[in-house]
Amino acid sequence: MSMSEATPVTVRTHTSDQPIACLQASRPTATTITRASVAVETGAASLANALASRPALVVMSSTVNRLYGDSIGRALRAAVAAEVPTCVIPAGESNKTTQSVLRLLERAYDLGLSRDGMMVGIGGGVVLDMVGFAASQYRRGIDHIKVGTTLVAQVDAAVGLKCGVNVGSAKNLAGAFYPPVSVLTDSQFLTTLRQLDIRSGLAEMVKLAVATDEAYFAVLEDSASTLLDPSQRTSATAEGLVDRAISGMVAELNANPYEGDLRRRVDAGHTISPYIESATNYAVPHGEAVAIDLGVFAVVSNLMGILPDADLSRLLELLKRLGLPLFHPSLMDADAVSRALDATAAHRGRKLRLPLPERIGSTLFVDERLTVPDDLMRHAILILKESWT
Amino acid sequence: MSMSEATPVTVRTHTSDQPIACLQASRPTATTITRASVAVETGAASLANALASRPALVVMSSTVNRLYGDSIGRALRAAVAAEVPTCVIPAGESNKTTQSVLRLLERAYDLGLSRDGMMVGIGGGVVLDMVGFAASQYRRGIDHIKVGTTLVAQVDAAVGLKCGVNVGSAKNLAGAFYPPVSVLTDSQFLTTLRQLDIRSGLAEMVKLAVATDEAYFAVLEDSASTLLDPSQRTSATAEGLVDRAISGMVAELNANPYEGDLRRRVDAGHTISPYIESATNYAVPHGEAVAIDLGVFAVVSNLMGILPDADLSRLLELLKRLGLPLFHPSLMDADAVSRALDATAAHRGRKLRLPLPERIGSTLFVDERLTVPDDLMRHAILILKESWT
Repeated sequence: MSMSEATPVTVRTHTSDQPIACLQASRPTATTITRASVAVETGAASLANALASRPALVVMSSTVNRLYGDSIGRALRAAVAAEVPTCVIPAGESNKTTQSVLRLLERAYDLGLSRDGMMVGIGGGVVLDMVGFAASQYRRGIDHIKVGTTLVAQVDAAVGLKCGVNVGSAKNLAGAFYPPVSVLTDSQFLTTLRQLDIRSGLAEMVKLAVATDEAYFAVLEDSASTLLDPSQRTSATAEGLVDRAISGMVAELNANPYEGDLRRRVDAGHTISPYIESATNYAVPHGEAVAIDLGVFAVVSNLMGILPDADLSRLLELLKRLGLPLFHPSLMDADAVSRALDATAAHRGRKLRLPLPERIGSTLFVDERLTVPDDLMRHAILILKESWT
Repeated sequence: MSMSEATPVTVRTHTSDQPIACLQASRPTATTITRASVAVETGAASLANALASRPALVVMSSTVNRLYGDSIGRALRAAVAAEVPTCVIPAGESNKTTQSVLRLLERAYDLGLSRDGMMVGIGGGVVLDMVGFAASQYRRGIDHIKVGTTLVAQVDAAVGLKCGVNVGSAKNLAGAFYPPVSVLTDSQFLTTLRQLDIRSGLAEMVKLAVATDEAYFAVLEDSASTLLDPSQRTSATAEGLVDRAISGMVAELNANPYEGDLRRRVDAGHTISPYIESATNYAVPHGEAVAIDLGVFAVVSNLMGILPDADLSRLLELLKRLGLPLFHPSLMDADAVSRALDATAAHRGRKLRLPLPERIGSTLFVDERLTVPDDLMRHAILILKESWT
């Protein structure tokens, strides 16, 4: 499928008490993204329907395979009446390399996957990023479907158009904007997540709320902790929280799908978080790095006289209450933090285009790198280190 | 530059007796391609103008560097008043790998190339394919400019939107549709080409003519041999031949830039040629493989009662007169040829969509693989082996 066509991207939020129900032909509720627009719709075909008519390669992480491989296999066989070629790849940020993508391409080729075939990624953000990038390259681009199995993936990686891999310490240096034809979501996958992984997803949800939607932020203050209770993760409340994050993300993408505008509200939390992740060799999970980044720039905004004290407290309190960190020792290397800001500016077209919270739910942008001097960063980091850890 | 914008792609056909004049700010005659349309325009900026305002990485083959490196460097310094970072990469089909692209990405990153920077490829098809693919990936896509230095590159690789690399024996298995912002052409580069390389370009020109344009075919019958004379390669006649090939290619791309329609007239000559190239480990140059492929399917078309004898003779005579081969021993492996057709069908969405000449300048398509049985292929190949070698 070429990018010139208005590829419909279906984000299906499936609710069911049946594991991987999203793979079966039931409950057709969907959100549709085209290259130009995003809208909630009903009537989308399930993955099973899609697979019934086209050759496919299903790619999942070893974790997903261990926990859900059998039931996924059964669901696919029931739908397609044949074995669907499946490939299990190691997850983990350190495996998100061009080499891993090359292996996927080779596997697809060995299976004879044709240009009208598709790839289906089932996993967390790392797997979805790699499958999306492989699909964007294979025979110069074939269709793909993303099924997020972590909370971060469901509210962020699966919904987005971005895919890519790391090159050395440069996070996502190689990649593409490549819309999936379909995105499926199933709350059942969340029941087997660690608290750590739930918290990472919550960080992205808080990010979206603080940057774009005060009402959603208030909802998160009320009920985000529902997701921390494993028995509540398939509840209507929990699914409502996830659905709202997906809708919010989709609305942001709709306005700016290919980042022609480099001032993106959803870049909040993603300014120095890549540094924290790579400096710790990805020992700090993405969501935790996002939380720290959100905290740092909220304090920066407050110190610049932008974000009111009350709004700063609401944000830091919520992050803390959800068990998210607000500081990491890697931030004490002031030179490295300064270089991280430079690197982010390079990625945003030689301008910093820093999203700063001006109040809960509202973002302004600081374009110039000079507006965020190293001293200001140091000051903000020390405040978090001394008062919020 | 995201693909969602109507990126203008300028194909500049520059004529001058000054080497690499196309790199300088002179003679603004241009052809412009946008994602949706292609048109000849005037007033395009030169590469020098583009480089003056933006960070760039210039990538050239070692051959181009040896023959033109000094003068390219001088031209760039004169235009930009600074050293432009340059990277010399080995050409040759065997180097067209994901690993080579990765090295380009690393080099760009080490140089701090920002998202508003660009890559400039100066070389033959292999270099342009790699630079285009690297640009499509770097920071999820930056602008790039293509300067073709071989005849094949000038009339084909540089003008197209396709880029990519080989994966093992699978030619161009990994790639993208990624339009350059500008394409520059300078006939001076042709003066240092071997006859072998000129012939390869002529094969692509004949392909375009036989598939789409009888009048151009007649012009090629009259004057294509001009390009075989080194002293005539910058003549108005020779440049006219090249310009017309570029315009013709651009018109084909205009109608179907992202191959939403898999029936492409310019796929003539590209059905079993990938097999011939990979079977000989790229010892047979691309253009020669294209000529053989054109010959085989012209005979197939004739045997099927489609292409008249007179038109078949015109095509085979012209190819032969230009010193192009019409047979290669690798075609005697009937099973491999059969598999090559299967592989092409896989690449064209599980249908063969074989372009066949119905007369000079006119193409029809055979969609079904079964319509081209192995015996028919064998028969056509034997005719060429016995009567045209």
